[in-house]
Amino acid sequence: MAYINEHYLKLKAGYLFPEIGRRVKAYAAAHPEAQIIRMGIGDVTEPLAPAVIAAMHQAVDEMARRETFQGYGPEQGYDFLREAIARNDFQSRGCDIAADDIFVSDGSKCDTGNILDIFAADNVIAITDPVYPVYVDTNVMAGHTGPANEKGEFAGLVYLPVTAENNFTPELPKQKVDLIYLCYPNNPTGTAASKAMLTKWVGYARANQAIIFYDAAYEAYISEPDIPHSIYEIPGARDVAIEFRSFSKTAGFTGARCAFTVVPKKLAGKTRGGAGCGIHKLWTRRHTTKFNGVSYVTQRGAEAVYSPEGRQQVRQTIAHYMGNAKLVRETLAQLGLQVYGGINAPYVWAKTPGRATSWNFFDKLLSTAHVVVTPGSGFGASGEGYFRVSAFNSRENVEEAMRRLNEAEF
Amino acid sequence: MAYINEHYLKLKAGYLFPEIGRRVKAYAAAHPEAQIIRMGIGDVTEPLAPAVIAAMHQAVDEMARRETFQGYGPEQGYDFLREAIARNDFQSRGCDIAADDIFVSDGSKCDTGNILDIFAADNVIAITDPVYPVYVDTNVMAGHTGPANEKGEFAGLVYLPVTAENNFTPELPKQKVDLIYLCYPNNPTGTAASKAMLTKWVGYARANQAIIFYDAAYEAYISEPDIPHSIYEIPGARDVAIEFRSFSKTAGFTGARCAFTVVPKKLAGKTRGGAGCGIHKLWTRRHTTKFNGVSYVTQRGAEAVYSPEGRQQVRQTIAHYMGNAKLVRETLAQLGLQVYGGINAPYVWAKTPGRATSWNFFDKLLSTAHVVVTPGSGFGASGEGYFRVSAFNSRENVEEAMRRLNEAEF
Repeated sequence: MAYINEHYLKLKAGYLFPEIGRRVKAYAAAHPEAQIIRMGIGDVTEPLAPAVIAAMHQAVDEMARRETFQGYGPEQGYDFLREAIARNDFQSRGCDIAADDIFVSDGSKCDTGNILDIFAADNVIAITDPVYPVYVDTNVMAGHTGPANEKGEFAGLVYLPVTAENNFTPELPKQKVDLIYLCYPNNPTGTAASKAMLTKWVGYARANQAIIFYDAAYEAYISEPDIPHSIYEIPGARDVAIEFRSFSKTAGFTGARCAFTVVPKKLAGKTRGGAGCGIHKLWTRRHTTKFNGVSYVTQRGAEAVYSPEGRQQVRQTIAHYMGNAKLVRETLAQLGLQVYGGINAPYVWAKTPGRATSWNFFDKLLSTAHVVVTPGSGFGASGEGYFRVSAFNSRENVEEAMRRLNEAEF
Repeated sequence: MAYINEHYLKLKAGYLFPEIGRRVKAYAAAHPEAQIIRMGIGDVTEPLAPAVIAAMHQAVDEMARRETFQGYGPEQGYDFLREAIARNDFQSRGCDIAADDIFVSDGSKCDTGNILDIFAADNVIAITDPVYPVYVDTNVMAGHTGPANEKGEFAGLVYLPVTAENNFTPELPKQKVDLIYLCYPNNPTGTAASKAMLTKWVGYARANQAIIFYDAAYEAYISEPDIPHSIYEIPGARDVAIEFRSFSKTAGFTGARCAFTVVPKKLAGKTRGGAGCGIHKLWTRRHTTKFNGVSYVTQRGAEAVYSPEGRQQVRQTIAHYMGNAKLVRETLAQLGLQVYGGINAPYVWAKTPGRATSWNFFDKLLSTAHVVVTPGSGFGASGEGYFRVSAFNSRENVEEAMRRLNEAEF
């Protein structure tokens, strides 16, 4: 008798984005004339940079000749890419991260879920609220929680609210936690973490022998000079933090699939017997046993992101998206809404007008302006009364959407 | 205090292929003049087919223009690929498998490990012996076993010997098992499963409500007409089997990364309460939550494997490798060794001469002929006294290696 993992049955049926898709589809079917503009899901819209395209073409050509063909690569990624990452993303910012601390993968979504494999099942886990749903769901699936309550909060998780009231800065938990998810620049609120805030959390983790899972997928969108790009800019972080990075939003790789995880060799967890155990060794074993490396073509494309041309081209695309974010911020503020984020991240987070619920406002915006946003409550109970607007779009679409918002009555 | 998953500490330190690498490196350092020929690791050596290369170039070009750019694709794979797979690999052989039974992934190694996520931790698990080490290691990591004994056998696993004595046909287990790994054409023994054998196992699974994990990564190497290419050729298999397939060995995608898993919608497991639960729904949830799809460029390349040109080109490459396998078989047989496999799989499996242990023969072959093979004992206790020769190589290398074997004295 093959028994299933019953923890899966605790998951809520309607994941946020499928539910959005369902409502948009129903509205479009009933109103075929509506020109719907989607500002919901955070997927990039602009093509890959010319330097990336050229590198990928060259890599495809290498795969066509026996002399240059590439079979299995190192599971952790090719040295050419790991070295480019270590040099450009860390050493250039004074972070003491080496190429062999880097594990190239096909996505941060995979990595933030898979990382749980190497930890015990009964660690106490803290997440911010609202939060990227994958952190929660992967813990539920791994059996780290009880069932959900009517607000969608799972028993056993420690929720750290991030709202306007606390300036989107999670407070240290009252109960002792072992694993802490922090995502900055933040999805969904679009806010950034200051050096002071990260220093506080690194201090907490060091004092409590906890480990921080630091998701910096939106690092490339930081525009203010005093915001840390990596948690390793904080002294002592190498002893307590794993950092997740991705080329998805940095360089438009959502369809090309490349990311990486930094596991410093100094980082250690504990056995029940109290012995220290290197996390780098465990993750190496996990990564080499359950993963077979990223496409060679993709890795050569990712390497080209760090070339002088690649850097400049990628910066231009990011500037385009951040121009969109500025437009959204300004329009919503002119409409009298309370607006957050959108300065160091491609997401604008705003309070719904008239204290509407997130889903009510979602429906209203869809029907009056034919604009799709993401309901804040879909990211967690503390997101209720907010909505998220993604800046990933063409300028034309954003201008048209903002024109409609100006004309709509809420 | 962040506690680690201590099951990882049960794993043996020296994984087979790193140990081979270590010994080869040491020998090469001591004998820099030796021209070592590697017939150990099963990685392809021939370039991607021209049809695949052309499709990949076109896909890269699509990624360069806003109008044709692809961001996040469906986690389960694009319809164009799922439909090509269902039609060509299954429906054409009379298997009632639909496109939405197919989950495209970046590797069968990942899938055969990840599939455990959706099953309970206390299912009784059967594996053949010798076996692809990933099946064992992922079960150990997930806490499904006790510690290993001195032969490397883990407590709690049910080992099914496949040796010359039973004609490489695993017998049904004496104790009831819930999950069964079968890999055919087999790695490492190179042997194939007959229709009668698979019918027996499907019957066992149906009678015991067990589920078979059928790894058919080497399906494309089947040359004999009566050997099933898919377990779904066996009546009733859709109720009890998940099939893993890969483009790695079929079409040389070890560096391009594309595979797929078939989870028929009829397949069900059980809850502890005795309720049936669809496996397709659970795997959909796992796949969409912890994975973000395969590179668009890679998927277009995989689609081209099914084009008329692609099929012909891929067949030629497989014929090349199987020509190598024939040479290896014939040479070893002429040397008086007992030889198995190599007819429906790119691996030849042979008994060591003079009852040498696998590692002793490995060392002898390396030092006398400068040829690297894989010691059978590295795949499990029942592999002791055997060695595996991979046919993935140039003809020139295989001919030279066989010439040296003919001259060597064992």
